[in-house]
Amino acid sequence: MTTDYRIEQEPYYQPQSNEVALYEAAYAARLPVMLKGPTGCGKSRFVEYMAWKLQRPLITVACNEDMTASDLVGRYLLEAGGTRWLDGPLTMAARMGAICYLDEIVEARQDTTVVIHPLTDHRRTLPLDKKGEQVRAHPDFQLVISYNPGYQNLMKDLKPSTKQRFAAFDFDYPPPEQEARIVASETGIDEALAARLVKIAITARNLKGHGLVEGISTRLMVYAATLMKGGVAPRDACRMALVRPITDDADIRETLDHAIDAVFDAA
Amino acid sequence: MTTDYRIEQEPYYQPQSNEVALYEAAYAARLPVMLKGPTGCGKSRFVEYMAWKLQRPLITVACNEDMTASDLVGRYLLEAGGTRWLDGPLTMAARMGAICYLDEIVEARQDTTVVIHPLTDHRRTLPLDKKGEQVRAHPDFQLVISYNPGYQNLMKDLKPSTKQRFAAFDFDYPPPEQEARIVASETGIDEALAARLVKIAITARNLKGHGLVEGISTRLMVYAATLMKGGVAPRDACRMALVRPITDDADIRETLDHAIDAVFDAA
Amino acid sequence: MTTDYRIEQEPYYQPQSNEVALYEAAYAARLPVMLKGPTGCGKSRFVEYMAWKLQRPLITVACNEDMTASDLVGRYLLEAGGTRWLDGPLTMAARMGAICYLDEIVEARQDTTVVIHPLTDHRRTLPLDKKGEQVRAHPDFQLVISYNPGYQNLMKDLKPSTKQRFAAFDFDYPPPEQEARIVASETGIDEALAARLVKIAITARNLKGHGLVEGISTRLMVYAATLMKGGVAPRDACRMALVRPITDDADIRETLDHAIDAVFDAA
Amino acid sequence: MTTDYRIEQEPYYQPQSNEVALYEAAYAARLPVMLKGPTGCGKSRFVEYMAWKLQRPLITVACNEDMTASDLVGRYLLEAGGTRWLDGPLTMAARMGAICYLDEIVEARQDTTVVIHPLTDHRRTLPLDKKGEQVRAHPDFQLVISYNPGYQNLMKDLKPSTKQRFAAFDFDYPPPEQEARIVASETGIDEALAARLVKIAITARNLKGHGLVEGISTRLMVYAATLMKGGVAPRDACRMALVRPITDDADIRETLDHAIDAVFDAA
Amino acid sequence: MTTDYRIEQEPYYQPQSNEVALYEAAYAARLPVMLKGPTGCGKSRFVEYMAWKLQRPLITVACNEDMTASDLVGRYLLEAGGTRWLDGPLTMAARMGAICYLDEIVEARQDTTVVIHPLTDHRRTLPLDKKGEQVRAHPDFQLVISYNPGYQNLMKDLKPSTKQRFAAFDFDYPPPEQEARIVASETGIDEALAARLVKIAITARNLKGHGLVEGISTRLMVYAATLMKGGVAPRDACRMALVRPITDDADIRETLDHAIDAVFDAA
Amino acid sequence: MTTDYRIEQEPYYQPQSNEVALYEAAYAARLPVMLKGPTGCGKSRFVEYMAWKLQRPLITVACNEDMTASDLVGRYLLEAGGTRWLDGPLTMAARMGAICYLDEIVEARQDTTVVIHPLTDHRRTLPLDKKGEQVRAHPDFQLVISYNPGYQNLMKDLKPSTKQRFAAFDFDYPPPEQEARIVASETGIDEALAARLVKIAITARNLKGHGLVEGISTRLMVYAATLMKGGVAPRDACRMALVRPITDDADIRETLDHAIDAVFDAA
Repeated sequence: MTTDYRIEQEPYYQPQSNEVALYEAAYAARLPVMLKGPTGCGKSRFVEYMAWKLQRPLITVACNEDMTASDLVGRYLLEAGGTRWLDGPLTMAARMGAICYLDEIVEARQDTTVVIHPLTDHRRTLPLDKKGEQVRAHPDFQLVISYNPGYQNLMKDLKPSTKQRFAAFDFDYPPPEQEARIVASETGIDEALAARLVKIAITARNLKGHGLVEGISTRLMVYAATLMKGGVAPRDACRMALVRPITDDADIRETLDHAIDAVFDAA
Repeated sequence: MTTDYRIEQEPYYQPQSNEVALYEAAYAARLPVMLKGPTGCGKSRFVEYMAWKLQRPLITVACNEDMTASDLVGRYLLEAGGTRWLDGPLTMAARMGAICYLDEIVEARQDTTVVIHPLTDHRRTLPLDKKGEQVRAHPDFQLVISYNPGYQNLMKDLKPSTKQRFAAFDFDYPPPEQEARIVASETGIDEALAARLVKIAITARNLKGHGLVEGISTRLMVYAATLMKGGVAPRDACRMALVRPITDDADIRETLDHAIDAVFDAA
Repeated sequence: MTTDYRIEQEPYYQPQSNEVALYEAAYAARLPVMLKGPTGCGKSRFVEYMAWKLQRPLITVACNEDMTASDLVGRYLLEAGGTRWLDGPLTMAARMGAICYLDEIVEARQDTTVVIHPLTDHRRTLPLDKKGEQVRAHPDFQLVISYNPGYQNLMKDLKPSTKQRFAAFDFDYPPPEQEARIVASETGIDEALAARLVKIAITARNLKGHGLVEGISTRLMVYAATLMKGGVAPRDACRMALVRPITDDADIRETLDHAIDAVFDAA
Repeated sequence: MTTDYRIEQEPYYQPQSNEVALYEAAYAARLPVMLKGPTGCGKSRFVEYMAWKLQRPLITVACNEDMTASDLVGRYLLEAGGTRWLDGPLTMAARMGAICYLDEIVEARQDTTVVIHPLTDHRRTLPLDKKGEQVRAHPDFQLVISYNPGYQNLMKDLKPSTKQRFAAFDFDYPPPEQEARIVASETGIDEALAARLVKIAITARNLKGHGLVEGISTRLMVYAATLMKGGVAPRDACRMALVRPITDDADIRETLDHAIDAVFDAA
Repeated sequence: MTTDYRIEQEPYYQPQSNEVALYEAAYAARLPVMLKGPTGCGKSRFVEYMAWKLQRPLITVACNEDMTASDLVGRYLLEAGGTRWLDGPLTMAARMGAICYLDEIVEARQDTTVVIHPLTDHRRTLPLDKKGEQVRAHPDFQLVISYNPGYQNLMKDLKPSTKQRFAAFDFDYPPPEQEARIVASETGIDEALAARLVKIAITARNLKGHGLVEGISTRLMVYAATLMKGGVAPRDACRMALVRPITDDADIRETLDHAIDAVFDAA
Repeated sequence: MTTDYRIEQEPYYQPQSNEVALYEAAYAARLPVMLKGPTGCGKSRFVEYMAWKLQRPLITVACNEDMTASDLVGRYLLEAGGTRWLDGPLTMAARMGAICYLDEIVEARQDTTVVIHPLTDHRRTLPLDKKGEQVRAHPDFQLVISYNPGYQNLMKDLKPSTKQRFAAFDFDYPPPEQEARIVASETGIDEALAARLVKIAITARNLKGHGLVEGISTRLMVYAATLMKGGVAPRDACRMALVRPITDDADIRETLDHAIDAVFDAA
């Protein structure tokens, strides 16, 4: 039942700019960090890579609107000999000096977002009100949050008093050649084939806001490439991994199916 | 109190296209899979068939809006000697290497849908935050979800960050001759009689969006055929199994009753 | 604390058409059944009669919007020696091979309605997720639901994927002579007097949709007849049992009071 | 901790018509009864009087929108030796053969109102689903509910399937002379003085629907008379007991204060 | 852990009219009492004064919308030897014969307000449904509620059936000379200075409904006087205690700041 | 598990006016205090400074909309030997004579805000209803709350009866030269460089209400200075710490990026 939060193998990560150096500077000052960008563009991978590079354990929490502060901070469990306190993932991270990564923070209820405030200013403490304890964060502890500015509604946004506690990084899909290299290297298909998948993805990304909530992510391209590698015909693989998951709109499906045909007819 | 999730007998399944091979490719790469299509067109039957063919246990969860993440992941039970952890169906599936089928996923609350994220990317882990354990999925584990694009409203849709984690299959009612064959083979009525039921169903399916939320499913045709096999007059069986369950609208009832009469007058 | 769900005495039931034979055919195939019709027209009586005729135990649940899936399926109770599982009425019915009658199913929350899905298709199982057990339904088990199409609003309707699991029966108030016979036979008043009560009820039923949500049910006529049998003056009995319970609208009260006077002046 | 629900002393009750005989007939047939009428007109007093006259215990429950079915039916309590079931007031009444009076039933949530259904038809049973027991009502048990048609909104009304289970009694304030007699006899002031209070009350009742939600009840007149009996000046007593509690509207206060002055100037 | 609810020292209270005598009459008849008036005008002080004068213990409950009936009535606590019942403040008051003061009753949920009904009519009992006990109120017990008619919205008002259970007292700010005397006597500043504070407060009270929800209360004047007594400059004290707490509107702040300047320039 | 709430080191605080003396006067009279002002302008720092100066322990609670009164007041914990009461932070502060600082009080639910009422008037008590105890506040106890008038909506505002219990302090960002001195002294960059950061912040603050909810706080400037000190290029540091965290609007980003360029081009 014990868990080791170390990243043992170097995660595959292709830097897009100087974000690695900037993150190292932010971590050196233990500034809380906010990662912004669309789904599947590599935010989670980046934080894993930095945790590996900085040799810190990484504790990830996927936030959701039904999560309570206790899910982060901890709770009492009832046992034979009475109650026993169980640290939540945030408390665990603060004690052990891990990087704590709260994925899609805006999905969480406010008690979740407010609970991080004293960890993100000069206090660097986490009050466990239910236990009567104040945890002073380990010197190596750092808080990282992610959020996707693309599809937040007005009801769900971070409060200004939360935003003003983070240094922020913008992420986006990598440039085409680099993205093709990533897909090729992750799946073993050749780069020319990967470049075709990127072409289809770019068509979809241009439709964002015109009927599509989000474009095709790098992850879905990896799916399509994996299926092709496994023997699935390219058009089947692309329809199944790139188009069907993201839309039920007949017009958009047709546009994307045409893009697939065009890309593979040209082959 | 032990349960075996193996499918022992080959489920009756009539392939509509190359979906069996595509699913096998997706399973070989352990890609998460999303099955889309109207009610009663065979999505659940397909996943049972594939579980049988792939020789994997199948754990099915019917999702609903009152289901919590704990219903999927597990919870502590209080017992004489203290608390005991009980794995939920998702955790059980991840440990034993089963196919976990979340039926009508969009009905669930967000904490249910977000909990599957780390199982559906390169991590393939399930954090049991309340237990302080990270379950690494068994190599044979696969996640399958279904959803019906026909009657989702704006309030209930999968988040883009969830959609972008699945390869998707489209399902629809089978073509008429094949559907008649299915009804005949499942109930033992002759194919000509089954073909009449299909005619009535097609009338109803054409009314979808014009007063009917959904058409007549294959399952209801099997009901009507079963009743006829049991001695019920065809018109009674059709009214009772095909029309009365799906509408209370007097006009639509009349249209469908006429269709029944027309089909059996012609006999 | 044990309970026997057998119906020991033949319930009084006057068939309106061939519904008894149709139900027997549906039960023979163990098809799930949906009973539709206005309040107090005899749906519950019919299912009791069929349970008696088929010699099956009957377990009835009055659904409501605060009912949880656990209320149907069961829950753990905490006891001296730890927790003990207690089957809910649906699980009990599935194990013992009873007819389980969910009265006014649309009132229930979705987790209640979704929980019946695996019991209403070829699986005929009930997963007890909290117990880690899958109950295979007894071969004699059948599920029956009722609902009243008259006063459902848009917010409360069965999902198409639920509707498409049932064969449906339409019910309505019996024809006048038969209804008078029912009232007379249940209360011991003479049929001529009962026929007058039916006349008043028909006046009210014609006002349905014109200020009355529902007409006067057979049950209320039985109340009025019982009061008259107990010595109450007919007009008092009718006002008290037929009019006052169903409306506070002054105009409608006057209309119905006139109908009462007219019926008894003519006597 | 034991309780006796017998009414030991004859409650003061002034019949307005033949309602005592009608209630006796309804009780003789054990018909469920609904009492309708404005606040403070004597509905609760009437049911106490009938309980005393019929020599039955009376269990009263003031309904409210936060009440659950368990509050009526019962629940498990955790004790040293495990859990112990505690009957709720409705179950207690059904077992002991009491009259159970659910005051202002429309305030309750639906699970409260639906739970009474099987007690109010030919079954006369109360299923304790959480205990796995079906309570057969004692032959003397009767259910009585009250509700005030005056200020119900559309959101809160009894469902037709609930209404159609009761014989109903209309209540209203007593005629002036009788009401004055009641006030005089309950407080010991003389009837001429009581008649003046009634005059003021009638002024207020005529404003009902014109700025007042409800008029002045008999109870408030008893308050005013009690204060006068205790030495308070009549105008002070009337302002304090008749006007200030029911309105903050300056115009209506002025109208009612004038009515008070007029009545006592005339003295 | 024991508590004595006696008021030991005479609370400072300046009668505004004959309210002390009227309250004594209401208490003599044990009539439930409702105190109405704006924030900080002395309602709580008055009930403390009366409790002291009548030599009764006083139990005060500040109502809020998250308070449940159990918070008033009591609940079971789990202990080593099983559960133990703990009386809530209302039950405690009813048993010991205290005055129970429910402050800002309209803030509470309906189950809180309905629970007081049987204590406020001829029954004078409090049913503890969860304990199966009926508490007969001590002969000295009295119920007092307060509410502020100034800022209630339509959603939050007492139900007519609750209002009609109380004799009511109107409160308002005292007349200027008296209010200055109160402020002077509570803080030790001289009456001329106190009169200036009252002048500023009157300016604010005239703005009520014109941008201010409520005027300046006597309490805030006591704060300002206390600060001046502690050496703070009058204008600073007034801005800090009279203006900044009640408004952020720039125009109203300016108006009130001018009033402060005018009052002290004139000095 | 013990905690010391003393501030051991003098917090860095630059007074803006006579607020230190005014606070000392308020504390001398133990007046409850409300701190108003925008995010990150130094409210929390001020209260820490005053706690240090007055030599009082400080207990801080970050309020949120899911916080219950029990989170402030305390609750029973279940242990081997039964239940044990655990004081919440407010009770702890009242007992030990600490300053209790409720940060962003308007975020809390009403039961949280009402629970402080008896601590903020002449009573200075905290009723622990669930424990049957009334805590008399330690003579040194003081309550402080903060709130940000800038982005409150109508749904979330303190009730007038709460506001009228506090003396209030207005806070704002410090004047430019002082703010530059603060940033320089906290991070070790030179004042000229810090002054440039302030220039950028002022540009952003002028956009408040014109697309920005809040301007750039002193805290974010400290972040930017820290990154520069750590070797990050000034423009990178400013984009990452001043602009990216507070806006995703392309126009505003461009405006602020230009301001950054202008400031550093001029260098």
